[in-house]
Amino acid sequence: MKHKIGILGFGTVGQGLAEILLSKKEELKSKYGYEFDIVAVGDFKFGNVYNANGLDIPSMLKEASVGKKFSKDITDWDNINLIKNSDTSVWCELTFTDLVNGGPAVDHVKTALKAGKHIVTSNKGPAALCYPEMKKIADENNCKFMIEGTVVAGTPVINLADGPLAGCKITKIRGILNGTTNYMLTEMEKGMPYDEVLKVAQSKGYAEADPTGDVEGYDARGKVTILANIVMGAGIKITDVPCEGITKITPKDIEKAKSQNKRWKLIGSVELTENGVDASVKPEMIDISHPLAGVSGATNALTFTTDLLGDVTIVGPGAGKIETGFSILTDLIKIHRG
Amino acid sequence: MKHKIGILGFGTVGQGLAEILLSKKEELKSKYGYEFDIVAVGDFKFGNVYNANGLDIPSMLKEASVGKKFSKDITDWDNINLIKNSDTSVWCELTFTDLVNGGPAVDHVKTALKAGKHIVTSNKGPAALCYPEMKKIADENNCKFMIEGTVVAGTPVINLADGPLAGCKITKIRGILNGTTNYMLTEMEKGMPYDEVLKVAQSKGYAEADPTGDVEGYDARGKVTILANIVMGAGIKITDVPCEGITKITPKDIEKAKSQNKRWKLIGSVELTENGVDASVKPEMIDISHPLAGVSGATNALTFTTDLLGDVTIVGPGAGKIETGFSILTDLIKIHRG
Repeated sequence: MKHKIGILGFGTVGQGLAEILLSKKEELKSKYGYEFDIVAVGDFKFGNVYNANGLDIPSMLKEASVGKKFSKDITDWDNINLIKNSDTSVWCELTFTDLVNGGPAVDHVKTALKAGKHIVTSNKGPAALCYPEMKKIADENNCKFMIEGTVVAGTPVINLADGPLAGCKITKIRGILNGTTNYMLTEMEKGMPYDEVLKVAQSKGYAEADPTGDVEGYDARGKVTILANIVMGAGIKITDVPCEGITKITPKDIEKAKSQNKRWKLIGSVELTENGVDASVKPEMIDISHPLAGVSGATNALTFTTDLLGDVTIVGPGAGKIETGFSILTDLIKIHRG
Repeated sequence: MKHKIGILGFGTVGQGLAEILLSKKEELKSKYGYEFDIVAVGDFKFGNVYNANGLDIPSMLKEASVGKKFSKDITDWDNINLIKNSDTSVWCELTFTDLVNGGPAVDHVKTALKAGKHIVTSNKGPAALCYPEMKKIADENNCKFMIEGTVVAGTPVINLADGPLAGCKITKIRGILNGTTNYMLTEMEKGMPYDEVLKVAQSKGYAEADPTGDVEGYDARGKVTILANIVMGAGIKITDVPCEGITKITPKDIEKAKSQNKRWKLIGSVELTENGVDASVKPEMIDISHPLAGVSGATNALTFTTDLLGDVTIVGPGAGKIETGFSILTDLIKIHRG
């Protein structure tokens, strides 16, 4: 069966995914028997396009690279109608993340699942704000709601917990889930105060003009909520998770950690308790010998504490065009394998 | 369908597996729909037993714990006949590893697969010496040959490469694959010379009376061969892998590494090349900032270099009764999930 792929959001991740799918077309067929056409793309900047026989992705990538609107296969359908009316079997929801209301992504996901079309997404909105509801709709419609890309880009954490760690009970998860703040903390150790480091991070494109989402820990909190709900079935809301960012860390704090052979890290944490889970995001001083202490820059890492294996730590990229594009690919393959 | 499990080898790993299966019976049923009976066990010390309705595992564990032979459900069948004649759907091959000829394990595996029964094993012999042959027989008989437990105990490396990393091309694997030598190198850093550290390791049970298999790197070489053949389809033999152990490392070498901000690690390595693979086991000085440098004691770790994600490192236990028992459980669940 040839998979009929739709992509919503043709920004960095959408383009990264399209590039990977193009370049790996033969490899995916020979290695996994995975065959596909990208038949629909919806993007608020480049326009909505549809061709049941497959879109001209190379041209679209070229147009997008110079900021031009798509010129072929243009459709009048808005996103919702594109999802509903197109002959598609799976939708990749890659529009912007809104951690307050979920943004249009929630409607996109619901529409696709209700139409019997799988969802693969790196958008933290629907996953962090309403995973149980989305999962229920997916189950009712015999569809998958796949979200590896919502946490730590393509570094496999959700699929690791669900697959190779199956049989273990995961009792605790602790991790460095935000690359921007991890980069900033690494730089602060070299002696620069918070305000200066932030400016450098912004000039390098690591931090946004409004850095709140990263530095106040909100991004990490979204990921903690997703992990708590998916891996531990916690059923918690994002607002249930106490959250403290890195804005109050002073050069004096940094020195204190150093003197104790420790290092500040912004740690997202979920732990099973008798009454449910304890989840939080806060800066912690980590002993320098711990695997998480050695993780620097934009790299992310996550330690699962399990009943049978003790601690298992995975370290990998936490962001990036191709890295996040891969997170979508791996879930597409997982759906294909059934 | 209820899985009918046979276990060959009721030593540490076999007993660990039996304990896990007993204690998780309800959890496995409710979480994965996994139901089973352990119906056959073959052990050269405790005897061979068979009961089509399920063995009395708690009694057997009690008997084994005090070194007593099994007293119930005794059968005259030797291992080969037990595999062939019993009503079993899957065999766990947990007898001792022979990295020269593969030992009786190779015959056990062949017999089971030819009888249409899956194999799950932590025995490095068949996997390191004749993976392609075993895999072929498995495929011909519509069976699985599952070997997560042959490398780094239950810390998922083979299932990680096959599952959550699917879609990536793995171009290089480097890892700390032997806990005994890693413990010894960690101790040598504290100033003790090789001979003394070996004595301590032996007294603590980390190293065997004849430590050759560990200290000369042969154990790691078996694992490197398995990774090369499974993850990269290299089709190499164990004797194709150049191998150097840790016996020649002197206190002077240790000092030299320290002075360069490095640390000695016994590194197993496989890399894709234009002509196939380059595989080796040898001590290397690793920069202290690398994730592998922080891995101490019996913990193991492995870095996959991939085309789409760059480096992904996994750190976890490399040995242990329950940890290796889990490696068998996770493959049993994988077979169940199909």
